[in-house]
Amino acid sequence: MTYCVGLKLKAGLVLLSDTRTNAGLDNISRYRKMFIFETTGERVIALMAAGNLSVTQGVVNQLQSDIDRSAEEDGVETVLNCKSIYRAAQLVGQAMRDVQTRDRASIEASGAGADASIIVAGERLGGEPRLFLVYTAGNFIEAGEDTPYLQVGEHKYGKPILDRVIRPETTLEEAIKAVLVSMDSTLRSNLSVGMPLDLCVIRAGRFHADTLRIESDHPEFRQISDSWANTLRVGFHSLPKITI
Amino acid sequence: MTYCVGLKLKAGLVLLSDTRTNAGLDNISRYRKMFIFETTGERVIALMAAGNLSVTQGVVNQLQSDIDRSAEEDGVETVLNCKSIYRAAQLVGQAMRDVQTRDRASIEASGAGADASIIVAGERLGGEPRLFLVYTAGNFIEAGEDTPYLQVGEHKYGKPILDRVIRPETTLEEAIKAVLVSMDSTLRSNLSVGMPLDLCVIRAGRFHADTLRIESDHPEFRQISDSWANTLRVGFHSLPKITI
Repeated sequence: MTYCVGLKLKAGLVLLSDTRTNAGLDNISRYRKMFIFETTGERVIALMAAGNLSVTQGVVNQLQSDIDRSAEEDGVETVLNCKSIYRAAQLVGQAMRDVQTRDRASIEASGAGADASIIVAGERLGGEPRLFLVYTAGNFIEAGEDTPYLQVGEHKYGKPILDRVIRPETTLEEAIKAVLVSMDSTLRSNLSVGMPLDLCVIRAGRFHADTLRIESDHPEFRQISDSWANTLRVGFHSLPKITI
Repeated sequence: MTYCVGLKLKAGLVLLSDTRTNAGLDNISRYRKMFIFETTGERVIALMAAGNLSVTQGVVNQLQSDIDRSAEEDGVETVLNCKSIYRAAQLVGQAMRDVQTRDRASIEASGAGADASIIVAGERLGGEPRLFLVYTAGNFIEAGEDTPYLQVGEHKYGKPILDRVIRPETTLEEAIKAVLVSMDSTLRSNLSVGMPLDLCVIRAGRFHADTLRIESDHPEFRQISDSWANTLRVGFHSLPKITI
């Protein structure tokens, strides 16, 4: 499995993904699940993928190959030259449909699952930060003010903290802490989600992705994880008791 | 859906269940999911059920009808007279198989799911507190020292806090707080789990279930919920930051 979470805030977009992939319990490996496409000063698109790895890699490769082709041919529409981030999400959905049409029957015939989902986050010059979740069928939803985050993969363990602290007004600094705490809870409770992590921050109006690979010995992440464990332990022990 | 959690501690057993049942999103009602069978001073068995309500009610009715029958006939084996709590879990598993054999095909033919799972907790004179999880197929597992809790239903939201604080040595007082916090996180993140709650404590060596129905205006539960929200908010804001 996987856990990826994206936040859409007034200050920009914050994305975090893990890197664990497994084909069964005895075949576990590391794969990057976050992919960035950028035209400096004009547009940035970040994808985070969960589900069948061959499917999501197929989608990313198709998007990249369109970008490569557009450098040589006129009239090739890509996530970097299309008219909006909404349209970019449509292109991701179309690529998902293409891969599903090509591969799904054979994948399922082999007994594996072909489902996949992709978070699409981005901003373009003249637009606003937007955040979408593309499903296996190529359809998608957009994060709004009421629920300014989207998750794919093992999303339940890390949802409570997001529900408690994330609002559109949340600062990027607080948002980064929130996604790391959300991931920390997931890492502790689910073996199929694993370090290292990929963090990406897209500050509104910059059209650039700041990225950070967080290894398991990353000192600030360890501090957050330990400090949170301590907060929970101390806070828990000081809760009022119920008599029965 | 449902959320039920049971802890097996040196000091006894702590059980908590919600009461929300839904047949689709537009048909939501309240049903007790916790059932107690007790022979004062000798044996107590508590069940908590998740999954298809007709199936779990069928299982509980069969167990109760065996108990009723054993008052009039000799040789009827029941969860209250069988030789161990392990055997009681087998009887619950057998009742599950009987109901599945009788009803599963028709339930599935109607497009609904017949899966169900039941937590069986109990202690008998001469034994120790034991905690089992019976699956749809009637097979079951027992909680051990390494993971001294079992959950059914929407278990993921409330798992992180259990992983952090529950050990076999945890006191009953702390354990009650832990299951309430675990439930509180689930209630906030998942609509299919709802108040009121049923709490049950089986103190080791007492062979008796202390029970408490917790309505949404229960003052001590509200205090725990608010105090926990405050702990998380304050602790969260004081976490160290990561710069990117």
